[in-house]
Amino acid sequence: MTSAAGEQPAPRKKTGRRPGGADTRGTVLEAARAEFAARGYQKASMRAIARAAGVDAALLHHYFGTKDRLFLAALEFPIDPRLIVPQVLEGGPAAIGERLARLVLALWEQPDVRDRLLAVLRTAAASEEVAGLMRGFMVAEVVAGVAAGLDVPQPELRVELAMSQVIGLAMARYVIAVEPLASASPDELLPLLARALQGYLTGA
Amino acid sequence: MTSAAGEQPAPRKKTGRRPGGADTRGTVLEAARAEFAARGYQKASMRAIARAAGVDAALLHHYFGTKDRLFLAALEFPIDPRLIVPQVLEGGPAAIGERLARLVLALWEQPDVRDRLLAVLRTAAASEEVAGLMRGFMVAEVVAGVAAGLDVPQPELRVELAMSQVIGLAMARYVIAVEPLASASPDELLPLLARALQGYLTGA
Repeated sequence: MTSAAGEQPAPRKKTGRRPGGADTRGTVLEAARAEFAARGYQKASMRAIARAAGVDAALLHHYFGTKDRLFLAALEFPIDPRLIVPQVLEGGPAAIGERLARLVLALWEQPDVRDRLLAVLRTAAASEEVAGLMRGFMVAEVVAGVAAGLDVPQPELRVELAMSQVIGLAMARYVIAVEPLASASPDELLPLLARALQGYLTGA
Repeated sequence: MTSAAGEQPAPRKKTGRRPGGADTRGTVLEAARAEFAARGYQKASMRAIARAAGVDAALLHHYFGTKDRLFLAALEFPIDPRLIVPQVLEGGPAAIGERLARLVLALWEQPDVRDRLLAVLRTAAASEEVAGLMRGFMVAEVVAGVAAGLDVPQPELRVELAMSQVIGLAMARYVIAVEPLASASPDELLPLLARALQGYLTGA
């Protein structure tokens, strides 16, 4: 029951890379994603990543620091949260739920984005260490930014409730994959999700 | 392929088991998990589980009842999700969101219930097999029941959206544990969660 094609890491780019250059960075991050996916955060080895990327372990440490930093870089939230925050806030609070819902649903329509976000979620669910990394990252980079643009009591709590809905929808739709939710179109989900998010972010 | 340690079944207790005793129960639940994982909920056989556990099939039925009950016990659902259905529906749709929110928040205040629900979630996130088992069970036993009591278009989709919020709140509050959500009291969360759930279940 293995779909070999779907489980193989993407082919490595072997050509034209220079130490420390853009190609090396891409190769290292790709090797790191493969290693984290194959062995999990705890067991993934910097040495194995360096070997797979064909770079020196010292160079790996020089450019990426410790494993947790490499992990965050390798996950490369396909959405840069510093870009998401203004996108969600822009236009004011009246339609913020719909904007966030549209953004999330559109991102999930991109299979590579979705897969990487799910990998982050699965890893966080399995590892307290990774959950801890995510926790700090999300509060600092996402929650605080959106909360600062809201004029409601307990803005951080509300942003986190909205975030919890986004996380839960990913779990139910793509991980547990209950039907009809798993096959519902973004258009079907949009108004329902938008209202829930709007309620969290601006509801009295 | 996440951390192997997290996916290994607990070591078997082979010593000192008595028919119907605690050790037998552990052995049966372990055999059931293996059988459900190997063959899926529908095809799993009580007879095969009894055989694998080295107990009489009649004893298995005596202690665990039917296959659905054994399934819940094996996955260590701390509560029978089917009992939730009448509790949520009772009293009609006007305050269904608040009833569901109260029920969920009250269950999570019980640490053992919460821990075991989180264990189920984590396992489903890590294992497509377990996710598949949950999928069939939740849709057949929970979603259909609540949906049948609603008078809205796409009732299953709406119940699953409500379920997704409950799952996501558990992930964000207890697994990723972002603050202030992790430390918010049930009373703080109740009105916000209730409104979101109400919107899913009865909103136009």
